[in-house]
Amino acid sequence: MPPLVGVLMGSKSDLPVMQGCLDTLTELGIEHEHHVMSAHRTPARVQEYASTAEGRGIEVLVAAAGMAAHLPGAVIAWTTLPVIGVPLASGELRGLDSLYAIVQMPSGLPVATVAINGAKNAAYLAAQILGVKHPEIADAYKAVREQMRNQ
Amino acid sequence: MPPLVGVLMGSKSDLPVMQGCLDTLTELGIEHEHHVMSAHRTPARVQEYASTAEGRGIEVLVAAAGMAAHLPGAVIAWTTLPVIGVPLASGELRGLDSLYAIVQMPSGLPVATVAINGAKNAAYLAAQILGVKHPEIADAYKAVREQMRNQ
Amino acid sequence: MPPLVGVLMGSKSDLPVMQGCLDTLTELGIEHEHHVMSAHRTPARVQEYASTAEGRGIEVLVAAAGMAAHLPGAVIAWTTLPVIGVPLASGELRGLDSLYAIVQMPSGLPVATVAINGAKNAAYLAAQILGVKHPEIADAYKAVREQMRNQ
Amino acid sequence: MPPLVGVLMGSKSDLPVMQGCLDTLTELGIEHEHHVMSAHRTPARVQEYASTAEGRGIEVLVAAAGMAAHLPGAVIAWTTLPVIGVPLASGELRGLDSLYAIVQMPSGLPVATVAINGAKNAAYLAAQILGVKHPEIADAYKAVREQMRNQ
Amino acid sequence: MPPLVGVLMGSKSDLPVMQGCLDTLTELGIEHEHHVMSAHRTPARVQEYASTAEGRGIEVLVAAAGMAAHLPGAVIAWTTLPVIGVPLASGELRGLDSLYAIVQMPSGLPVATVAINGAKNAAYLAAQILGVKHPEIADAYKAVREQMRNQ
Amino acid sequence: MPPLVGVLMGSKSDLPVMQGCLDTLTELGIEHEHHVMSAHRTPARVQEYASTAEGRGIEVLVAAAGMAAHLPGAVIAWTTLPVIGVPLASGELRGLDSLYAIVQMPSGLPVATVAINGAKNAAYLAAQILGVKHPEIADAYKAVREQMRNQ
Amino acid sequence: MPPLVGVLMGSKSDLPVMQGCLDTLTELGIEHEHHVMSAHRTPARVQEYASTAEGRGIEVLVAAAGMAAHLPGAVIAWTTLPVIGVPLASGELRGLDSLYAIVQMPSGLPVATVAINGAKNAAYLAAQILGVKHPEIADAYKAVREQMRNQ
Amino acid sequence: MPPLVGVLMGSKSDLPVMQGCLDTLTELGIEHEHHVMSAHRTPARVQEYASTAEGRGIEVLVAAAGMAAHLPGAVIAWTTLPVIGVPLASGELRGLDSLYAIVQMPSGLPVATVAINGAKNAAYLAAQILGVKHPEIADAYKAVREQMRNQ
Repeated sequence: MPPLVGVLMGSKSDLPVMQGCLDTLTELGIEHEHHVMSAHRTPARVQEYASTAEGRGIEVLVAAAGMAAHLPGAVIAWTTLPVIGVPLASGELRGLDSLYAIVQMPSGLPVATVAINGAKNAAYLAAQILGVKHPEIADAYKAVREQMRNQ
Repeated sequence: MPPLVGVLMGSKSDLPVMQGCLDTLTELGIEHEHHVMSAHRTPARVQEYASTAEGRGIEVLVAAAGMAAHLPGAVIAWTTLPVIGVPLASGELRGLDSLYAIVQMPSGLPVATVAINGAKNAAYLAAQILGVKHPEIADAYKAVREQMRNQ
Repeated sequence: MPPLVGVLMGSKSDLPVMQGCLDTLTELGIEHEHHVMSAHRTPARVQEYASTAEGRGIEVLVAAAGMAAHLPGAVIAWTTLPVIGVPLASGELRGLDSLYAIVQMPSGLPVATVAINGAKNAAYLAAQILGVKHPEIADAYKAVREQMRNQ
Repeated sequence: MPPLVGVLMGSKSDLPVMQGCLDTLTELGIEHEHHVMSAHRTPARVQEYASTAEGRGIEVLVAAAGMAAHLPGAVIAWTTLPVIGVPLASGELRGLDSLYAIVQMPSGLPVATVAINGAKNAAYLAAQILGVKHPEIADAYKAVREQMRNQ
Repeated sequence: MPPLVGVLMGSKSDLPVMQGCLDTLTELGIEHEHHVMSAHRTPARVQEYASTAEGRGIEVLVAAAGMAAHLPGAVIAWTTLPVIGVPLASGELRGLDSLYAIVQMPSGLPVATVAINGAKNAAYLAAQILGVKHPEIADAYKAVREQMRNQ
Repeated sequence: MPPLVGVLMGSKSDLPVMQGCLDTLTELGIEHEHHVMSAHRTPARVQEYASTAEGRGIEVLVAAAGMAAHLPGAVIAWTTLPVIGVPLASGELRGLDSLYAIVQMPSGLPVATVAINGAKNAAYLAAQILGVKHPEIADAYKAVREQMRNQ
Repeated sequence: MPPLVGVLMGSKSDLPVMQGCLDTLTELGIEHEHHVMSAHRTPARVQEYASTAEGRGIEVLVAAAGMAAHLPGAVIAWTTLPVIGVPLASGELRGLDSLYAIVQMPSGLPVATVAINGAKNAAYLAAQILGVKHPEIADAYKAVREQMRNQ
Repeated sequence: MPPLVGVLMGSKSDLPVMQGCLDTLTELGIEHEHHVMSAHRTPARVQEYASTAEGRGIEVLVAAAGMAAHLPGAVIAWTTLPVIGVPLASGELRGLDSLYAIVQMPSGLPVATVAINGAKNAAYLAAQILGVKHPEIADAYKAVREQMRNQ
C-alpha cells in the first residue's frame, strides 16, 4: 500500500525526536514515509516533494523543524493537503523561535501546529485527520484513547 | 444537509474575531454551526456537545478561546474528531497565554493550533482536513489558493 | 477522619515534585488524599471527583499540571470549593506555559495559583485557607512561620 | 458587622480596576473594607494593618499592585491569613512584571495569585475561601455559578 | 541603469513601513526596484525572482515580512546574494515572531537581520554592503553619517 | 573601622553567588558586613536592619534575592541610603522574575539594579557610589579599571 | 555652582520622558545639566563628555536610551563615576530590549539600572548617591520620603 | 595578502564559539584576523581598531558579544564598513539579551545580525557580502551551497 502520511524533517539531527512520530504512526497502522529535506538548503526538493505528494496518494503531511522553522510553511506553499507542523527545541531559544515561525502563518495558509517537540502528537493528529475518511484509522486512534482512559 | 464543522467559542465577545471563521467556511461552501460555550462556566454543555458531535455528522471541530484557553483541550477530551484551536488575543498578555494553553497539549491529545486570532485560518485548515475526504471541499480550497497566486 | 484536602496531579511523573505538597500537608497534620487524573485523558474521572468532593468532606483542592495545564481549571469547572493550582515546569517552556494556563482564568472561576513547581506552597496555602475555619490548622501554620522567624 | 475581607491596593490609581473586586464582594454580600497603602512608601502602615487584621476579625486579605508588585508579599510577611494577590497591568510590561513578583513567592509564604487585572476573581476566590467556613457565602458563590451556567 | 537592490515585501500592507527603505535608497542614489510577493502564497514567483536576481545585475536583496516571516529565508534559499531581512511588527506578537523567524537561520544560510520595522536601516545596510564595491555608494553613506555627527 | 557596606541576601543558598560580591569588596578594601534575612520570613529583621543602617555608619546597601525578589524593595522601604539590587537566577524562570521584581520599582523608591547574578558588579557599583565621597575607594576602583584596560 | 549631575539622552525625542528626571532634580535642589548625544551617531561626543565629567565636578551621570540602548554602557566605558541607566520604552519591544541592553553589563562595569521609563527614579537614585556625601541632598530626599509617608 | 575580514569578540571566553567563524572563513579562503577587545573595558582599542579598519584594507567586520552586547554597535559607531553582529548565549538569559542589544539598532547605524551563537553564519554572511565585489569569494560560497544541496 502506498503511504498516506509523509513525514519531513529539516535535518538528520531531528530524527531522534521525530522517531516518536514514526513509531506512533506504525503503532496506529498508518502507512508512512519520511525524508530529510530543508526549506533553505534544498528548496527544490521541498517543492518537488510537496507539489507531487497529493498525486502520489499522500493525504497528510508532517513537517518538523527548529529555530527559524520554515519547513512546514515551505511545504504548505506547494500543496493544498493538510500540513502538521512540529516545532523542535533545537537552538538557544528552546523552541520558542520555531513555535512562532510555524504557528503564526498568514491567512489562507494554515499549518496545524502541535506542541514543541510534540512528535507523537503529530502522529495522533494525522490519525484524527485521516480518521475522517478512513474508519479503521479512526478506530485505531479511538483504541489509544480508550487505553488512556483505563490506565 | 447537516453541518460538517462545529465552531465553538468561549464567550459571546469572541464572535467579532470568529466571524472571520464563519464567513470563510460559508465562502468555501462548508456547512457549519456555531455555539458559545465555556470549558469553565458550562463544562456539561461542552461535554455534551463534544461527545455527541461525531454521531451527529460533525467531522471537524473548531474551538476558540482567550487567556487560560481551555476550550479546545476540553473538547478534545470528549471526542476523537480533529479539533482546531484558535488562540484569541483577549487579556493583557495579547494571546501569548492562550497560544501556550492551546498548543502545548500532552501526548495523545493534540489540538491543531493556528495563529493568534487566526480565525480565517481555522476555516482554511478545516477545509484542508475535510478535503481529504470531500473532493468538492478540496476543490474549493484549491480555488482560493489559485486566487491567491493570481492576485 | 476523612481528608480535608484532595491533591490531584495530571500524571504519575508529577509525583516527585508534588511529594513536597503531600509531605508538607502531613507535617501540618492535615488529612489529605491524592490521585492522578488528567483533564484530557480522563475527563470523566475529573468531573466525578471534583463534583463530589464537597459532599465527601473535602474543603480545599490542589491541582498540579504542566504544559497546557488544564487540570486546575477543569476542577474548578465542577466545584465551588477553593482550588489551588500548581504550575509544573515540565516541557521545553519550563513552566511558563503552565503558569499562564493556570493563572489567567476567566471571571468567576479563579484558581489560586502558586509559584512554578511550588508544591510545598500549595500545602501552606491550603493550611492558610483551612485555618480560617479550623483553629488547629491555623496554629500549625503559625508554628511553621514562627520556626522560619527563628532560623 | 465587622468586615471579613480587607482589600489593599498600592496606589489610588489602582482603584478603577480594583472597583471590580469591591463591587463583586458587595454583590456576594461579603463585608469588606479597602485601603490604599504601599509596601514601599508606607511600610509601617502595611505592617500595622497586616499584623492586626486577624485580631480585628478579617479572615481573608486581597492585595493588588503593579510593576515590582511587593504589596501581597509584604502583607503575607506580617500575617498568617490567606492573601490573594492581584497583579495589575500598570507600566510598560503590562503586568508580566507584577505577575512574576506576586506568584513566584518562596516556600512557606504563598500568595494566592489570580489573573493580571483579575480584580473580580480576587473577590470570587475570597468567596470560595470564606465559603469553607460560612455556608451563606458558599451559597452566594454557588448562585453566581448557577447563573453562569444558565446564561 | 539597472537596479542594484531588489526590495521584496510579503504583502501590499507592508508598503507604508517599507516606503522608508525605498525613500532611503533613493536618497542614497541607489537604483532599486520593489515587488510584493509571498513565500507562501506565491512561492514560484519568489523562486523565479530570487534565482534570477544575480543574473539581472541585482547585488543585494531586501526582504520584509511579518508574523511567521519566511520571505527572507525563502529568498536566500534560491540565491547566494546577501539578503537583508526586515522583521515587521504586524500581528499580536508585535514583531517578536518575525524577528525570531528571520534571524534564527540555520548554518550556511544567513539573513542579515535589522531591527523590528527597521526599514530605513535595511537601506543603510544595503549601502554599507554595496559600498564595499561601489565607492560612490560608500561616499553617500559616509555623508549621511557625517550629517548625523553634525546634528 | 565600621563597615560602609551592608550586604543582605534572602537565603543562605544565595551565598555561593554572593561570595563574589564579598570578595570583590574585600579586594577593593571596602569594609563590609553581610547577613541573611528575608523580606517575607523575617520582615522585622529587615526593618530593624534597614532603618538603623545609616545610624551605624553604613553608606550603601546591597540586597540580593531570587524569584519574587522583594528584599531590595523591602530594604529601600525603610532607608534613604542607596540600595543596590542583585537579581538571582534561582527558580525556573532563571532570574527573569527577580529582575522584574527588583528593577520595576515605583516612583520615589529606586533600587540600583545590576545584572542577573551580577554579584561582583554590585560591589563595583558600591565602589563607584562610595568613591564620590571617599577618594581612596574611587582610586581602588580606578585601579581595577586600569587593570582591565591592560589585560 | 557647577552641576553635580549630568543627564544624557540618546535622542531629542527622549526629552518628554526624561523631563521627569530634570524636574525631579530641580525639586531636590540638585544642580544638573543635560545633553543629547548618541553612543552610535556621536561616539566622540560621548567619549569627550564622559571622560571629562569628573574633572568638571560632575559626581553622578544619568544616561537614558531606547531599543539597543548602549548609551549608559558607552558612558561607563569612559568614566569611573556612578552611571544610572534609564531604559526607554521606544520601539516595538516596549523597553524590554533597552532594559536588557542596560542592566546586563559585564563584570567591572555596572550600570545602576532603574525601571523602564523610570526617569524620576533616576533623579531619586542620584539623590540617594549624592546624599552619601552631601547632607543637604540626603535631607532633600528624606523630605520627599516623609511626604510619601504622609500622603 | 592583507585580511579582508576583522573578527572581534568581547572576551577570550567567546573564542570556543567564534572559532566556528574563523574556521569557516579559512575554509572559504577569506583572509582574516581576529582580536579580543571590549566596548566597555577597552573602548579606546575599539575606537582605534574600527576607525582605522577601512584604511588597512578590511572590508567587512564581525563583532560577537554576549549579555548587554554593545561591541557590534560600538564598532559601527566608528566605521562605515558593514558590521556583522553575533549575539552570544552567555549569561542567564541565553542570548535573548544579546540578540536584542545587537539587532535593535537605531536608524542610520544597522548591524547585520545573525542567529544566537551563529558564528559560522557570520562567516557565510561575510562571504556573501564580499562576493558582491570578489568573484572568487562568491564562487567559494556557491560551492558550499552546492555541497549543501547534494548532501
